[in-house]
Amino acid sequence: MGTEFLKIMDSEEVKDIIKNMEITYETEIVHLNDAYLRVLAEDVCAAIDLPPFNRVSRDGYAVKAEDTFGTSEDNPVILKLIDSIGAGDNPDKEVKNGTCIEVGTGAPVPEGADAVIMVEFTENIDGNISIHKSAAIGQWIASRGSDVSKGDFLLPSGTFLTHDKIGVLGAIGMGKVPVFKKPKVAVISTGNEIINYDEKLEYGKIYDINSQTIKNAIKSCGCTPIYSGIAKDDYEDIRTRIEQNLDADVIITSGGTSAGAGDVLKLVLDDIGEVFVHGIAVKPGKPTIVGKINNKPVFGLPGYPAAALTIFHVLVAPFLRKMASVDIRKSDILKLKLSRRYHSSRGRHQYVLVKIENGMASPILKDSGAITAIAEADGYFEVKKNVELVPEGTEVEVVLLESR
Amino acid sequence: MGTEFLKIMDSEEVKDIIKNMEITYETEIVHLNDAYLRVLAEDVCAAIDLPPFNRVSRDGYAVKAEDTFGTSEDNPVILKLIDSIGAGDNPDKEVKNGTCIEVGTGAPVPEGADAVIMVEFTENIDGNISIHKSAAIGQWIASRGSDVSKGDFLLPSGTFLTHDKIGVLGAIGMGKVPVFKKPKVAVISTGNEIINYDEKLEYGKIYDINSQTIKNAIKSCGCTPIYSGIAKDDYEDIRTRIEQNLDADVIITSGGTSAGAGDVLKLVLDDIGEVFVHGIAVKPGKPTIVGKINNKPVFGLPGYPAAALTIFHVLVAPFLRKMASVDIRKSDILKLKLSRRYHSSRGRHQYVLVKIENGMASPILKDSGAITAIAEADGYFEVKKNVELVPEGTEVEVVLLESR
Repeated sequence: MGTEFLKIMDSEEVKDIIKNMEITYETEIVHLNDAYLRVLAEDVCAAIDLPPFNRVSRDGYAVKAEDTFGTSEDNPVILKLIDSIGAGDNPDKEVKNGTCIEVGTGAPVPEGADAVIMVEFTENIDGNISIHKSAAIGQWIASRGSDVSKGDFLLPSGTFLTHDKIGVLGAIGMGKVPVFKKPKVAVISTGNEIINYDEKLEYGKIYDINSQTIKNAIKSCGCTPIYSGIAKDDYEDIRTRIEQNLDADVIITSGGTSAGAGDVLKLVLDDIGEVFVHGIAVKPGKPTIVGKINNKPVFGLPGYPAAALTIFHVLVAPFLRKMASVDIRKSDILKLKLSRRYHSSRGRHQYVLVKIENGMASPILKDSGAITAIAEADGYFEVKKNVELVPEGTEVEVVLLESR
Repeated sequence: MGTEFLKIMDSEEVKDIIKNMEITYETEIVHLNDAYLRVLAEDVCAAIDLPPFNRVSRDGYAVKAEDTFGTSEDNPVILKLIDSIGAGDNPDKEVKNGTCIEVGTGAPVPEGADAVIMVEFTENIDGNISIHKSAAIGQWIASRGSDVSKGDFLLPSGTFLTHDKIGVLGAIGMGKVPVFKKPKVAVISTGNEIINYDEKLEYGKIYDINSQTIKNAIKSCGCTPIYSGIAKDDYEDIRTRIEQNLDADVIITSGGTSAGAGDVLKLVLDDIGEVFVHGIAVKPGKPTIVGKINNKPVFGLPGYPAAALTIFHVLVAPFLRKMASVDIRKSDILKLKLSRRYHSSRGRHQYVLVKIENGMASPILKDSGAITAIAEADGYFEVKKNVELVPEGTEVEVVLLESR
């Protein structure tokens, strides 16, 4: 009854196989309004100076500094007010000795002026300005290019465009942004008993959990899921759905990978692709398949929801993130103490779902079919295969399930 | 020239004012496919048992356990094979003493059977099954409701629907999900010199940075931005744009809040709303305004990009997250050592942007107009007003700019 596992591999061996799978990076241009949380595909240098002109940085009067040298509260100088300009204005008058121009913050510095006196140190006397303080040359002027000069390096290719980095692109008027294309990932659930949430739950059927979990997990890895429905545990149905999705960059199935009656994904891969991995010495997730069709990676996740979720995170998510040029955030890996001891299965590398409570990691002791395990899970930690007992209070590395 | 600050307030005082602003929570029903990263607005209890039927958990033979008692490799029992069912099938035969039914993982347990023998411990001899191992009652059966019973509590109201929690909703076939409405937040930039990135950069103009930063930062807080363009520093223009946005839940402006010529937001609020805060003893961000129109909070951020970004994070983001029922992730607050000492301005509470390098927080020593400060920033830390020097190596709490 059914096929045998090819050869049970260690998880490190499988990780290496996946790490060496070829990736083609494609880019596209998106509008600045759509660039949030995308990944920059080119280095960005400043196309303009910032500020783009000599800019007034305090409300006051633009003067020739030399006119103010030696002035004080007791010994003011009177300058003739010849104009008033604000931010956004284009001044047409020039400051000459003995004159000044009223300026608002953000205004361009008028020609001839080389300093700004803050309004606090002046007095308007019948339309002329009495200056009570000596100005240094350049005072309250942000000179053109002083923040960024045209050509300056701003953001490297690979920058994850968070809101603040979008502001940087806005600053240089970059309306079109080169980003990496989001890899497309097809998601197929398999199993004769699996139905969609909008179908009637008849005897012997269960609702599809894995498509829901995996298609959203794909988004959290910076990729676009393509939901491809539920296949029967049937060679033709699975093969057809896979062939229909060969324009995706990756194909992920779940269920149907046990060494048993339903094990048809392997048969399909044997015929139209290749199988690299069939069975991994991990718990949960032993019946995982990794293969390739037309140079597209195919991942066959186990059917049990917690096993599918765990294997997705351990093996598939790092690959998808690499394809999408999105790193896991370092802050999504926490060092936490175990709230109670954990017994591991001898000889199997384990990945253990945990709930984070009171700053500690609490192992969820349920089998991989239990949906309640997923309801409680915040992350997982790893137990190497030669470890049988992890004592209470041990510091473990917890990887959070939802990154970004 | 211009207005004076109302009364400079401490940032703690301002945080209290904002904390006490009234919030109305509204809910809506979304489709399961659109529920990812939304916030559950009701407790979710199981609408069905999980598994929904007694479910076979290993490939093998469904038997009456009593038929196998005392059997061994040397002393097998032969049972008559009367049927074969797999996952998704609806069995119509009953297991009686002396008979068995072949079952696949996921199949319903046939009537009469109370245990499953794994295929490894059996042999098919001319259509009859030789059983080599005694079965315990209930063995390899996940009984109906053993994971979740109908009515069991699954997820509390307020759950942030990450991909794994979507899987939980899928498991119980919950196609329609009650979630909190995303608050709508209007974003208005102000300033005669500010232009949109698709306009020509004429002398004296600068590109709008704050709208780009703030509208995406609003998304990162679980809210929906409504971009409302760039207003002139003009009473009528700002008032009109605010009045046009009174169907939003919050209004955020940036620029135009200095105590100077352009300070018109305060005048508008004085006329059609209320001003609670005008000037805060913080650096950067002193000229911040907090007010209300028709019970809608209005935040007037400073014009300088790094100041606007910082004040958004310190004062506005916590409020928006509260409105959206989205917590900042604890993992987005890091304890890091300072890579060099930091001198603070005496008497002003400071928020200092930092770059994270080699696991340490490196203060960005640029003024709040500098876009390069934002290009480098990963987060910020706080220096209380009575602190003048933070020595190198001090552990500080860094809040990451992009949460979730």
